[in-house]
Amino acid sequence: MKTFLVIGAALLLATLSSPAQDPLPSWNDGPAKMTIVNFVHVTTEVKSPNFVPPEDRIATFDQDGTLWVEHPMYAQVMYCLDRVPAVVAKKPELKNVEPFKTVLSGDREAIEKLTMPDLEKILVATLTGMTTEEFQAQVEAWLATAKDPRWKRPYTELTYQPMQEVLSYLRANGYKTYIVTGGGQDFVRAYSEQTYGIPPEQVVGSMAGVTYGYDTDGKPILTKDPKLLLNDNNAGKPEGIHLMIGRRPHAAFGNSTGDRQMLEYTKAGDGARLSMLVLHDDATREYAYGPAQGLPDSKVGTFTQALYDEAQKDGWTVISMKSDWKRIFKFEP
Amino acid sequence: MKTFLVIGAALLLATLSSPAQDPLPSWNDGPAKMTIVNFVHVTTEVKSPNFVPPEDRIATFDQDGTLWVEHPMYAQVMYCLDRVPAVVAKKPELKNVEPFKTVLSGDREAIEKLTMPDLEKILVATLTGMTTEEFQAQVEAWLATAKDPRWKRPYTELTYQPMQEVLSYLRANGYKTYIVTGGGQDFVRAYSEQTYGIPPEQVVGSMAGVTYGYDTDGKPILTKDPKLLLNDNNAGKPEGIHLMIGRRPHAAFGNSTGDRQMLEYTKAGDGARLSMLVLHDDATREYAYGPAQGLPDSKVGTFTQALYDEAQKDGWTVISMKSDWKRIFKFEP
Repeated sequence: MKTFLVIGAALLLATLSSPAQDPLPSWNDGPAKMTIVNFVHVTTEVKSPNFVPPEDRIATFDQDGTLWVEHPMYAQVMYCLDRVPAVVAKKPELKNVEPFKTVLSGDREAIEKLTMPDLEKILVATLTGMTTEEFQAQVEAWLATAKDPRWKRPYTELTYQPMQEVLSYLRANGYKTYIVTGGGQDFVRAYSEQTYGIPPEQVVGSMAGVTYGYDTDGKPILTKDPKLLLNDNNAGKPEGIHLMIGRRPHAAFGNSTGDRQMLEYTKAGDGARLSMLVLHDDATREYAYGPAQGLPDSKVGTFTQALYDEAQKDGWTVISMKSDWKRIFKFEP
Repeated sequence: MKTFLVIGAALLLATLSSPAQDPLPSWNDGPAKMTIVNFVHVTTEVKSPNFVPPEDRIATFDQDGTLWVEHPMYAQVMYCLDRVPAVVAKKPELKNVEPFKTVLSGDREAIEKLTMPDLEKILVATLTGMTTEEFQAQVEAWLATAKDPRWKRPYTELTYQPMQEVLSYLRANGYKTYIVTGGGQDFVRAYSEQTYGIPPEQVVGSMAGVTYGYDTDGKPILTKDPKLLLNDNNAGKPEGIHLMIGRRPHAAFGNSTGDRQMLEYTKAGDGARLSMLVLHDDATREYAYGPAQGLPDSKVGTFTQALYDEAQKDGWTVISMKSDWKRIFKFEP
């Protein structure tokens, strides 16, 4: 039966030769594309032994490096650095206090040398203390003007077109698509619907607490706290999935060691499960980093050889950006 | 325009005189039913100034006392007490230790006198330490046999038929319905889909942490921790709504002081917002408790006069079980 279904998927793929019918036109025909099409086929065909009822069709996606560019630095870190002048304008006493002084200097080299406790001070100052509505407006205002240093385009244009197609393809087949990100939940929610078609309630991220209270007019407000409830990375990803979704995903996509436990948890379920990893091996069209497969090491989005080996062993599929993706961005000619 | 729409809703209600077309057949015609029908009308009619786009249609429901019976004691507390023998069977050293000894004695009076720290020990012993899958199986097994002491029926049959109709009516009009309960999130998730048509990812409850790990076969598991991440009561309700949903509801339903902040937060949004409170004023068909409006005081589901007054002042609607509900349970003749 399984063989039959794989052949079925191959035939299906063959009949999709007309571009209008191909759900994944930015993917080269190859094992990665075939794996996705086959997975959708075997989990949605009513007669399939691996049929998944519509209510159980959950697919989770890491964001940074899986759905959009994360190099040279996560967009949210750029946001926090860019917010520092506005924070200091409101609290001038911070002007000569580190790490704010260094950030205000604009000295890239010095900024890159900031320590983890320094970065935390910047995160607390720029991500907490305001109401949830003020924060959303601040992120939206930044996204409207901020540009990625290499492509000189808004960050929200730097999503991977092949992954956008996977999101749409899964949704067209009854899957509920979620972002499961180490980034801040409220940060990603500010643009997820417009950028990925993923509503705020389907964004699972690192979660800080909020506190209910009233403004000076007695109107209810929620204020963002520095108290971290969930670090949605590594083991925090399946934990966050349980807290926010309460079901095990049938498909999960990541690109770094921070996604390992989410992919393990997904793959360990019954029936057909899809675990995929995006490998950044295209220095020309995007970036190349690992250190898996001899790629340059990187602190941002680390993909170790151990992760690569676990993927091989557990039947996860590694997506090569270089050979599996026809194009990377929508704006490419 | 507003008057026009109210009249429109009245006409709409009049045309619904045939029972087959009435979305709320268990409700008596009156201000509460009219308020619900009018709300749905003005938020879903495209030409209405209060039209709400489908993606923003969020409605939240407290569970205990709002969707099902909470007297004489919350179903989850009954569950925890009923689980004690199984816990002691696995850990015989607890047999002669309080509060387990008292619970095992079956002495109702002594059990009712247990202190808060005693109850916490029982909650920790019965709700944590197992995997999420084991816990779900334990709750399902209990629900299959446990009976409410008064009606001698499974707890899941003691949902309020008029509220089931509101859930269906809102969903038929594009609303996403959520449970927002002070009860345990995983407990309610074990039956919410079958009982209310509400999937696990739409249950916001008091949340304990889970820890990712591996069983002796190396299979990934999530173990339930005693660490409370969110007490989803009072201010915790709007806080939980932000964490789990990320949008302000357009409609919210509760029945006790623990729901106050959720109803305030809902009502404080722009446009048409619906905040409703179920008042248990029917000692014959269900229970009567307040102490609002001179009803007997109660520790379970307290509805104070201050809450009643806030409802009057802020334009929330109080639902009288006695006069607004034609029938309370589906099993009534």
